[in-house]
Amino acid sequence: MEKKTLKVEGMTCGHCKSAVTNALTELEGVKNVTVHLETGTVDVEVDESKVSESEMCEAIEEQGYDVKA
Amino acid sequence: MEKKTLKVEGMTCGHCKSAVTNALTELEGVKNVTVHLETGTVDVEVDESKVSESEMCEAIEEQGYDVKA
Repeated sequence: MEKKTLKVEGMTCGHCKSAVTNALTELEGVKNVTVHLETGTVDVEVDESKVSESEMCEAIEEQGYDVKA
Repeated sequence: MEKKTLKVEGMTCGHCKSAVTNALTELEGVKNVTVHLETGTVDVEVDESKVSESEMCEAIEEQGYDVKA
């Protein structure tokens, strides 16, 4: 598992936090998702043999947020 | 039915809008709930013989928002 931090725009409240956390946690190979609303960042532990960064981005974008490169 | 506008603090996004809209719509005697995020206001149509203002406030507060007097 590798630690990564994603920059995500538009998360404002506890509901946003849950939406992003759940969407990422549902992906195989993603664990220990922590959303930081203040900084607009999401810490994850990723097994890169099971999930790609673009799959994670897609999951977040499906919830209505933008991932910054 | 009487039109009322409630002032609600802390609503920031579409999820908040849904949470407040659903909580109020579930009350008997409340109809046509419209949340305005920009102004922090909620327009409702109320049948005051069926629901009190304090019941509406309670429903909103249960969702984690503050109603201003």
